[in-house]
Amino acid sequence: MGKNLTKRSEDYSKWYNELVVKANLAENSAVRGCMVIKPYGFAIWEKMQAALDKMFKETGHENAYFPLFVPKSLFEAEEKNAEGFAKECAVVTHYRLQNDPDKPGKLRVDPNAKLEEELVVRPTSEAIIWNTYKGWIQSYRDLPLLINQWANVVRWEMRTRLFLRTAEFLWQEGHTAHATEAEAIEETERMNGVYAEFAEEHMAMPVIQGVKTESERFAGAVETYCIEALMQDGKALQAGTSHFLGQNFAKAFDVKFATKEGKQEHVWATSWGVSTRLMGALIMTHSDDNGLVLPPKLAPIQVVIVPIYKGLEQLDVISEKVEPLVKELRAKGISVKFDNRDTHKPGFKFNEYELKGVPVRLAIGQRDLENGTYEVARRDTLEKETVPMDDVVAKIEFLLEDIQTNMYQKAHSFREENITEVETYEEFKKVLEEKGGFISAHWDGTNETEEKIKNDTKATIRCIPLDAENKEGKCMVTGKLSSKRVLFAKAY
Amino acid sequence: MGKNLTKRSEDYSKWYNELVVKANLAENSAVRGCMVIKPYGFAIWEKMQAALDKMFKETGHENAYFPLFVPKSLFEAEEKNAEGFAKECAVVTHYRLQNDPDKPGKLRVDPNAKLEEELVVRPTSEAIIWNTYKGWIQSYRDLPLLINQWANVVRWEMRTRLFLRTAEFLWQEGHTAHATEAEAIEETERMNGVYAEFAEEHMAMPVIQGVKTESERFAGAVETYCIEALMQDGKALQAGTSHFLGQNFAKAFDVKFATKEGKQEHVWATSWGVSTRLMGALIMTHSDDNGLVLPPKLAPIQVVIVPIYKGLEQLDVISEKVEPLVKELRAKGISVKFDNRDTHKPGFKFNEYELKGVPVRLAIGQRDLENGTYEVARRDTLEKETVPMDDVVAKIEFLLEDIQTNMYQKAHSFREENITEVETYEEFKKVLEEKGGFISAHWDGTNETEEKIKNDTKATIRCIPLDAENKEGKCMVTGKLSSKRVLFAKAY
Repeated sequence: MGKNLTKRSEDYSKWYNELVVKANLAENSAVRGCMVIKPYGFAIWEKMQAALDKMFKETGHENAYFPLFVPKSLFEAEEKNAEGFAKECAVVTHYRLQNDPDKPGKLRVDPNAKLEEELVVRPTSEAIIWNTYKGWIQSYRDLPLLINQWANVVRWEMRTRLFLRTAEFLWQEGHTAHATEAEAIEETERMNGVYAEFAEEHMAMPVIQGVKTESERFAGAVETYCIEALMQDGKALQAGTSHFLGQNFAKAFDVKFATKEGKQEHVWATSWGVSTRLMGALIMTHSDDNGLVLPPKLAPIQVVIVPIYKGLEQLDVISEKVEPLVKELRAKGISVKFDNRDTHKPGFKFNEYELKGVPVRLAIGQRDLENGTYEVARRDTLEKETVPMDDVVAKIEFLLEDIQTNMYQKAHSFREENITEVETYEEFKKVLEEKGGFISAHWDGTNETEEKIKNDTKATIRCIPLDAENKEGKCMVTGKLSSKRVLFAKAY
Repeated sequence: MGKNLTKRSEDYSKWYNELVVKANLAENSAVRGCMVIKPYGFAIWEKMQAALDKMFKETGHENAYFPLFVPKSLFEAEEKNAEGFAKECAVVTHYRLQNDPDKPGKLRVDPNAKLEEELVVRPTSEAIIWNTYKGWIQSYRDLPLLINQWANVVRWEMRTRLFLRTAEFLWQEGHTAHATEAEAIEETERMNGVYAEFAEEHMAMPVIQGVKTESERFAGAVETYCIEALMQDGKALQAGTSHFLGQNFAKAFDVKFATKEGKQEHVWATSWGVSTRLMGALIMTHSDDNGLVLPPKLAPIQVVIVPIYKGLEQLDVISEKVEPLVKELRAKGISVKFDNRDTHKPGFKFNEYELKGVPVRLAIGQRDLENGTYEVARRDTLEKETVPMDDVVAKIEFLLEDIQTNMYQKAHSFREENITEVETYEEFKKVLEEKGGFISAHWDGTNETEEKIKNDTKATIRCIPLDAENKEGKCMVTGKLSSKRVLFAKAY
């Protein structure tokens, strides 16, 4: 039984959708736009969560939990945020169902159970959290306030895709309050840096750190930092954002603190988040026509061992060899599965673990027993070799590190090959159409030009890279002076 | 500054509410009935989650995530469950807000954005999950299906109390599918046992395992197992439930599997859950008039060290002594805080950590420096002693174990003293009024008698204990034959 996966070169989008479902990561549910995250997909997300949560705690943050619902009126407080977020959302208007008197066995909304004020299912939690912080912050001694929440949020998206854009998704949202502007900006940058480190170290996914242009900024933010990654089809994906909110929310919710000198001042705020969208980014960065390719640091199963045998007696002999190895690997913190199911053939299992992206696969059959070897295959390059049993643990340890590094390097090379500098708009359009990827170009800094480019080509400014050189040039569209290049791409 | 906590003997309920807020565990939010779980409270909940999650995984379960929303029609599928759960709930009827044309700056529901079918915010997820399982289960090879989800749920409670009863709460819900009735019952019992073990080993809270009577059963269950704990005010608290669902949900959602023999059969189901209600149980089991008392296994800070000094120079000398100790304790996996804040006096700090239930407190001042000692205080008994610096690590390790054990034993003694066997209904009412606690009595097994007792006294049957002796007796109300005693109590 093959994997029957559409090839990336044929239809990248179809390949992605099929892979998510066939690798048992997620599926659509009975609720429009909401997904079910299946155990294998959720196990990867749990590994992401654990790594991120550790990094948040190491940078001084604590977790808390705020309500799922936001009263409509709280959204009215911060105008821009309301414009950006309170619109396409799930609205709770009633608090009771009752038996439908006209249709036996059916339920209906109880018309007498209408809420006085509608509740919005949180699309993001700035409003409810800043309304709460008002009670928590009185003095400079209460600052900085460094809080994160892991939660589900809902945005009523019309066109949804598993992991990439769903009506409900899981995320974390950090919300911090500071005594000074400088501290808040430092925090915003720090957390964007944490995201970049996570993406590169754990997901093996190179990212570019930058800031958004005004039109791409978070609604209510003064500055939005982001990490941008490049997918294999040449489209960019925004993988995380970190916002410097200035005093906008503090003013909207009247959150002031007494300074050391006894003055009353509004606090300075940040918020930052990554979501289950990272799952989409992970899949599209590394996977191939045979299925998922997972970086060892995020793989729920790092090593799988498949026995090749005739008859249960031989399986017993193999099991005797394998079990001490399993034990030894587990003691080293390596997640290993010995797939001794007698209901499936080795070929079926090989396919399954290739599809599921297990980084290292061991096979052991009659000849290996005779020679004291394992066949060791790595998922990233599909290379196989025969390894003496005595060396297999060291080999596995080496491979888990090497695969992690190799995956990063491969993705990094691809990314570097797909950043093109252009000088003219003609060149820009040509590269965009023929090659895709990031295009580095001069832009005059106006919303109008940005809008024109988007309308002409569907490409947007992904970010102004933090490490962009200050080097004068001329806007490719208007010819006006520009102080640095920005990165354009079509994006998810 | 004292803690100004109401005494338990004065007003237990007020004591509880004050403690939850003053110890920074949780507070009410702007949304009726929904709480904010503050960082200190959430840190305890995270420890509970981690311990439970580990136990679930060790018993073969995997985590997944299902949608927040349940289409109304799915609730209609399982009649009893709909009766029990789909009624008092948050109902999403619209998917958009818009600027109110009549009130500038205000938002209103967009009347054109009405959902075709209302969505219920999950009060529990059997309906959406079983609707999904239909696609996952075809053959006996797909069974057992052992899945857990950590999620928020919403039930529109009219009278709410922090942690004990809130409109939104956090919980885990296990949902499993099995090939045989016996396996499903075994799973139901296993998970109730996991809950009991968690309560006793981690929360230091003794529980009684039992089954519910028909009238107290989960809506849609064939049998509901539970763990019941006793609070210090003599009221019982249901701390977790595990349900054997028979084939009710499989039939409602038409989930069948092919047996080894090729027959089509409906699968057998269980579900089981514990929630942030456990936080309420933890607080009410152990805490005292000085504040929280936390078992070491769940304490976010296990050891706090408070320096007593005059001038920052002396603080430096103390810090030099303390820092290697902090390092040594952390290396042993002990969570320790050195509170060297110069903005607060030692007395303030002592009060604060007593209020927050930190199990072990060390103090170190001038005399300790001279003598090479620490003052070591344990939170459970408030005992203090002077310990040579060389012995302090061993002392702390001893105390963390001893406090855990002592707290369990204290709660267990209290519980045992407050189980009273009665023979007559007069005696029952007298004990209930004067003493409270669990009352063990014979009952004729009918809903009518149970209902009468509840109406007369507000006491309910908490459970039929699993270890109840089969010993004939007469129902205390009707005098009819009864085969075993059941446990009554007033309950949270």
